Amino acid sequence: MSEEINEDELSKQFREYSVAEFFKRNRQMLGYTGKIRSLTTIVHEAVTNSLDSAEDARILPNINVEIKELPDGHFKLVMEDNGTGVPKKDVGKAFGKLLAGTKFHVLRQKRGQQGLGISYAVLFAQLTTGKPAHIKTGINHKVYECDITIDVKSNQPLITDEKEYSENFKGVRIEMEVSEVGYNRSEYGVYEYLRRTAIANPHAQITLTEPNGEIVLFPRASTVLPKVSEKVLPHPLGLTTADLIEMAHSSSARKIGSFFQNEFSRFSGDKVKELNDLNKEIDFNKTPASLTWAEAEAIVKSIQQLKWIAPETSVLIPIGEAQLVKALKSILKPEEMKVVERKPKVYRGGIPFAVEAAIAYGGESGGLVGGSRKLEVLRYANSTPLLFDAGNCAISEAVKGIDWSRYDLGKIEEMPITIFVNFVSVYVPFTGTSKLAVSPEEEIISEIKLALMESARSIGIYLHTLQHAQDEEERRSIFMRYIGEVAECIQDLTGNDSDKIKKKLEIIAKERTAIAEEGDKIEDDLGEEEGDEDEEE
Amino acid sequence: MSEEINEDELSKQFREYSVAEFFKRNRQMLGYTGKIRSLTTIVHEAVTNSLDSAEDARILPNINVEIKELPDGHFKLVMEDNGTGVPKKDVGKAFGKLLAGTKFHVLRQKRGQQGLGISYAVLFAQLTTGKPAHIKTGINHKVYECDITIDVKSNQPLITDEKEYSENFKGVRIEMEVSEVGYNRSEYGVYEYLRRTAIANPHAQITLTEPNGEIVLFPRASTVLPKVSEKVLPHPLGLTTADLIEMAHSSSARKIGSFFQNEFSRFSGDKVKELNDLNKEIDFNKTPASLTWAEAEAIVKSIQQLKWIAPETSVLIPIGEAQLVKALKSILKPEEMKVVERKPKVYRGGIPFAVEAAIAYGGESGGLVGGSRKLEVLRYANSTPLLFDAGNCAISEAVKGIDWSRYDLGKIEEMPITIFVNFVSVYVPFTGTSKLAVSPEEEIISEIKLALMESARSIGIYLHTLQHAQDEEERRSIFMRYIGEVAECIQDLTGNDSDKIKKKLEIIAKERTAIAEEGDKIEDDLGEEEGDEDEEE
Repeated sequence: MSEEINEDELSKQFREYSVAEFFKRNRQMLGYTGKIRSLTTIVHEAVTNSLDSAEDARILPNINVEIKELPDGHFKLVMEDNGTGVPKKDVGKAFGKLLAGTKFHVLRQKRGQQGLGISYAVLFAQLTTGKPAHIKTGINHKVYECDITIDVKSNQPLITDEKEYSENFKGVRIEMEVSEVGYNRSEYGVYEYLRRTAIANPHAQITLTEPNGEIVLFPRASTVLPKVSEKVLPHPLGLTTADLIEMAHSSSARKIGSFFQNEFSRFSGDKVKELNDLNKEIDFNKTPASLTWAEAEAIVKSIQQLKWIAPETSVLIPIGEAQLVKALKSILKPEEMKVVERKPKVYRGGIPFAVEAAIAYGGESGGLVGGSRKLEVLRYANSTPLLFDAGNCAISEAVKGIDWSRYDLGKIEEMPITIFVNFVSVYVPFTGTSKLAVSPEEEIISEIKLALMESARSIGIYLHTLQHAQDEEERRSIFMRYIGEVAECIQDLTGNDSDKIKKKLEIIAKERTAIAEEGDKIEDDLGEEEGDEDEEE
Repeated sequence: MSEEINEDELSKQFREYSVAEFFKRNRQMLGYTGKIRSLTTIVHEAVTNSLDSAEDARILPNINVEIKELPDGHFKLVMEDNGTGVPKKDVGKAFGKLLAGTKFHVLRQKRGQQGLGISYAVLFAQLTTGKPAHIKTGINHKVYECDITIDVKSNQPLITDEKEYSENFKGVRIEMEVSEVGYNRSEYGVYEYLRRTAIANPHAQITLTEPNGEIVLFPRASTVLPKVSEKVLPHPLGLTTADLIEMAHSSSARKIGSFFQNEFSRFSGDKVKELNDLNKEIDFNKTPASLTWAEAEAIVKSIQQLKWIAPETSVLIPIGEAQLVKALKSILKPEEMKVVERKPKVYRGGIPFAVEAAIAYGGESGGLVGGSRKLEVLRYANSTPLLFDAGNCAISEAVKGIDWSRYDLGKIEEMPITIFVNFVSVYVPFTGTSKLAVSPEEEIISEIKLALMESARSIGIYLHTLQHAQDEEERRSIFMRYIGEVAECIQDLTGNDSDKIKKKLEIIAKERTAIAEEGDKIEDDLGEEEGDEDEEE
């Protein structure tokens, strides 16, 4: 083992890679697997940005998606919104640089989180057709247009063909030509994605032009805007030592005590004192920048021992019961449904979240499988549909974990039912880069189950009532069918006129049927009642 | 909608993020979910590098992993190898910068692929304990030591406490203190990971010191080194337009024709001519740099129409049948096993891969579940164990897709059986960043199934034979049990001495038993044979 190793030879092999090169090689990590799904992923990235932007600007979003098939398997995509638009000087970063954006570090409920999505869509277009994306953005009646590609080696935007002019256009319009994608109306396609988006965003109007020219409108079901998402100061219970060190070392507070009070929620002067009492060896009057790792670790540990007011949950933005009812009615037209809003809870000690769920029965509820409607589960995180990776998702786990037969829904798989679950949080624990599944953590699964069980109870009672009414109606109709014969038998036995008896019996039967139809009085044991009637005769 | 939008306010929100910040927030994408799994991921990253490095240097790898539990839930990790070591000037990049490494762009079979793993482990240590990793590396009797942390904001290494001296140490030693991890011997733990690594790397000696002080040695089962992985020129069939443009524009060839001949495998002068005939409008004498997207797209399309010699498969490095047999015997001590090597195939048109598979029965085959051994499936990609995400993996799909009852293995789930599959390729299509599952593509699943079915056939025959021998043995023992009675009955009937008859019968029975034990003559219908014997008496 004494042979000489050539260090220079070893060193020559060393290279650095841009994040664009990395994801160029690993497109499947961002949801680009399969033709149908790749197209949906692109539309998802654009629509997500559009909804966030409209919400920021307090605008009722109008979103247009146009998909055209070109020769050679290429597709032309146009995605347009009426949101805030993007300032000219940020267009390059927003659309032509991975890991740049407005949302990454803000603890605030937004759909997008990574500053990765739309730029990667631009890169995908470039990698599959060699063509730049064309961006048009309008702010305050000034319009800016340009072509964008990404320099993969440096992860920098390359902007060409710039134009500026005045026009009454506001928002963003993205045009791109892509290949290695496909369009259909399957569960994983753009149509279904937009349909589900419409359900969770009743304040949005979404128009889709399909490759065959058909125009699908998902109309606005409500003009009520979702409330504005707010920034949240972090809650002490969610704090890791690494975060504390990072925050402390970049804090402008002069003392550790004031640092805690200013930069955390629920951190009162009393709490600072309690914390100091548990850590007497730490000088709370020194600067936060001088906090050592050991001290920070001790503080994080003590924080777990104190009692805290739960995190502020005003920052969470569920769709809301009234809105959700409107949206589900508009799209599913169900016979019956039950929407449940759970109160906010906390996972991992400090991250607030809330679950809203609904079960809809009948009408256009359920997914079409070979002509008949069967159970469909619509999963959402912050009102964004999760179409893929159902397997490893907290929502799927919750659905699987419920004993549906307890709610007379033992055959739920075969029923025309839509289960809707929206997981709402400032930080959604996705299981992968492509944001398709909510990490199946115990606290999350448990909340989802509770919400679904409450919905199930209500739907179960409805179905039970329905079944009962149907059973009763059936008994009546059987009774009606034999009234003639019964009347004649009674005439034979009693000598009374069978026509009179028949009329009397019919009146009785109709009264009973009417009661059943009103549904306000459901006897538990109709058999006995019928027996009583017989005796009356 | 005429309210003025404050562009500066919008712009202020724009930020850029380093890839280190990105993965700091998204550690689950790199396999850091759960305490046990996080520790395994760290060990995996180090061991993978060690094996690759030893292979490059043609050294039989000795790998030591030491895990100690410290107070406060911290763990100390030492991982040491005898490989090439890392040149001093590359240590920062290798251990302290994400997306830097030797393996990213080379089309060559290596375990690591991303230049992400060990640097992220260093970052993980830093994020959970605030402590730098300590690196020691020796090349040519010169040793270099330092502490490394990563500046998260810039994704740059911070090196401190450097030391240089002469010592007869070669290889790499990494020491780190981590928290938020855990150790046990479960399926997902370090022990199981190293056991599986040893099975697929019979040329390696791996020593594990567990937190309780126990030292586990996975001995070297073979001193034959795997062959050296070679670089491969890309095969035309795997080419995308984007890759072609990138290669053409950075090529130093003077003509398109020579560019194809020099930079691709299987691209002869004749093939260039055939290609030109299909694309007469393209001037094959111009420089590759002048190739347009449209031209490249036309060329890629034509390439699909030509007939090609299959890709070179000499670049694939399976473990090899002989090696695998040694390894499986050494670790599983099976009663019976069957190793199958499939010939290399191609997926996605141009990427060569090969499948090697084995089924082992009995001994220490199978996973221990509550004291008894049941089916375990060991999944590997390029000899690296895949412990997690079995659900979405081509190997799991293949196992599920086989009708095991056809091989007398209908109850395989309950049997002491180990299924081993190694997917070998210069490019493994992982389903996620954390490299845990092979993308379930049709061509891949099909090859794995064929390999497993061949193994299954062999194991099925063994089990059938075994069962037959057991059945026969049972019949003999029943017969032996009644010899005394039979002999007395015969004495009553014939007047012959029962002792003599008994001895005769015993000799006959033993002869037959001996035949059964030798197992070289298994009668299909023993019942008839016994009948014949009775008649002889």
